Amino acid sequence: MSLLITGSIGLDSVKTPLAEHHDLLGGSASYAAIAASFFTPVNLVGIVGDDFPKPYLDLYRKHGINLAGLEIAAGQTFRWSGEYEWNMNNRRTLSIALNVFEKFNPTLPAQYRNAPFVFLANISPQLQMHVLSQVEKPKFVVADTMDLWLEIAREALLELLKRIDCLILNESEARELMKEASLIKAGRGILKLGPKYVCIKKGEHGCLLFGEDLFFSAPAYPLEDIHDPTGAGDCFAGAFAGYLAKTGKVDPTTLRNAVIYGSVVASYNVEAFSLGRLQTLTPADIENRYQFFRKISHFELGGA
Amino acid sequence: MSLLITGSIGLDSVKTPLAEHHDLLGGSASYAAIAASFFTPVNLVGIVGDDFPKPYLDLYRKHGINLAGLEIAAGQTFRWSGEYEWNMNNRRTLSIALNVFEKFNPTLPAQYRNAPFVFLANISPQLQMHVLSQVEKPKFVVADTMDLWLEIAREALLELLKRIDCLILNESEARELMKEASLIKAGRGILKLGPKYVCIKKGEHGCLLFGEDLFFSAPAYPLEDIHDPTGAGDCFAGAFAGYLAKTGKVDPTTLRNAVIYGSVVASYNVEAFSLGRLQTLTPADIENRYQFFRKISHFELGGA
Repeated sequence: MSLLITGSIGLDSVKTPLAEHHDLLGGSASYAAIAASFFTPVNLVGIVGDDFPKPYLDLYRKHGINLAGLEIAAGQTFRWSGEYEWNMNNRRTLSIALNVFEKFNPTLPAQYRNAPFVFLANISPQLQMHVLSQVEKPKFVVADTMDLWLEIAREALLELLKRIDCLILNESEARELMKEASLIKAGRGILKLGPKYVCIKKGEHGCLLFGEDLFFSAPAYPLEDIHDPTGAGDCFAGAFAGYLAKTGKVDPTTLRNAVIYGSVVASYNVEAFSLGRLQTLTPADIENRYQFFRKISHFELGGA
Repeated sequence: MSLLITGSIGLDSVKTPLAEHHDLLGGSASYAAIAASFFTPVNLVGIVGDDFPKPYLDLYRKHGINLAGLEIAAGQTFRWSGEYEWNMNNRRTLSIALNVFEKFNPTLPAQYRNAPFVFLANISPQLQMHVLSQVEKPKFVVADTMDLWLEIAREALLELLKRIDCLILNESEARELMKEASLIKAGRGILKLGPKYVCIKKGEHGCLLFGEDLFFSAPAYPLEDIHDPTGAGDCFAGAFAGYLAKTGKVDPTTLRNAVIYGSVVASYNVEAFSLGRLQTLTPADIENRYQFFRKISHFELGGA
């Protein structure tokens, strides 16, 4: 089944202790859409300026991403620049320019309105709701968020939680949302706010998936060299939603596998700047690392 | 096969935000020995004062622990008191009195000297080596340590690492030992210092087991209410070594299961003060939680 994805699309400048690159393809929807495209057809909703490089449009198309919902507006594309410290966990935003993104108020193309699966990548909860309200009868809605919205749009986020099936957020955001130090209590608490499932990303420690009928603890891929962590969470969420849409199912077995496939794609994405690694990624690469995840986390009683 | 365990034995006073208890059975060897006793016969090496409560000796005996190597010396037993903050992760030591432990310089009983499996629970690396040197030809030696020894006995610890098969330590200790932020790099680095296996405990995030032929990422038990975290790491390590001794094997499958059984016993231990929970623990409880660990961490492609 197809997957509708909305979120930000931007041009990023990223500096790490080892390298620096400018005007990279970025934004939550870019990462999520390319990651999801390995699993299912993607209908993208977003906005870029008339300076948006054609090779990036070609890259979307190469991944079979439907751009009927991509508005190309007069003006500059959204820009973000940031810098990572040596540990690659701490990130400092150096500058943000919303540019045409300030005008983002999308009307869904008719062909998008019956989307069965929806992924609301990280943008304001008001915009997420604006897009969601135009989808007629979605089967499963996944949403990502970030600390900024917990701080400046908490009420809208709480409203959104009542309308979605699965929230994805990181551990500090989960703790902040519930004012609760225990991730287990925070996860269970978020379920009471609306979504049927909550996925808490723990970075190098993997992630936890909570549901009424489900608790799943997924390990992280043991990465030794991270080149650019930007977009890892968006890739995780995009591949997670993409795998669900591919199968058309949302039972516990499928959700567990979606978490692993999300982790697999995210683990590849950090191996190069921007979406560089995903441009050469193959289905065989994905299956290989899925099997590696099984190998590092499974255990059985019995013979050696 | 039998398991020789040495370490500290003490009387603890523990304060949490909810309760406070005095002269509890404590010490790394007490936790490890009781935890291991669920799997295999334990030969204990330690020292207590003549004030050591008889009920605690009876508890060891009830768990079938051989006390031939337990010295009862004139004077007071080692005492420790500490206080936990609300998050139950941060602990503050309030007082330490070594007492008879200052005289601990054990000579192993003859019946202990052919021990096939050895667990050197947390004491100084010099004492760990002193005990180990008296074991004739151990099949597999596991050692625990703590940040204190990294700081004041680093050379002795590095010497110990050349003589053991498996080191267990927590994530901050692993980072400190290798001066390395990445746990993956730290784990692989420690392997180069001597031990065939390294187990890095990550608290609420589970643990990682590294070996030349093995990488295993185990989830943590999703505890919602922790009553007393004291001794969790010692119980983990004791049950880990106890399970290996029970099977008599040290292949990758057995090591993975040992990590899970260690996690199971540790997860029960924190549910009550001191060793209270382990006094009522049954083999069925252990198997039930082993199966729960499987349930929360396994995934399979295929039907719902």
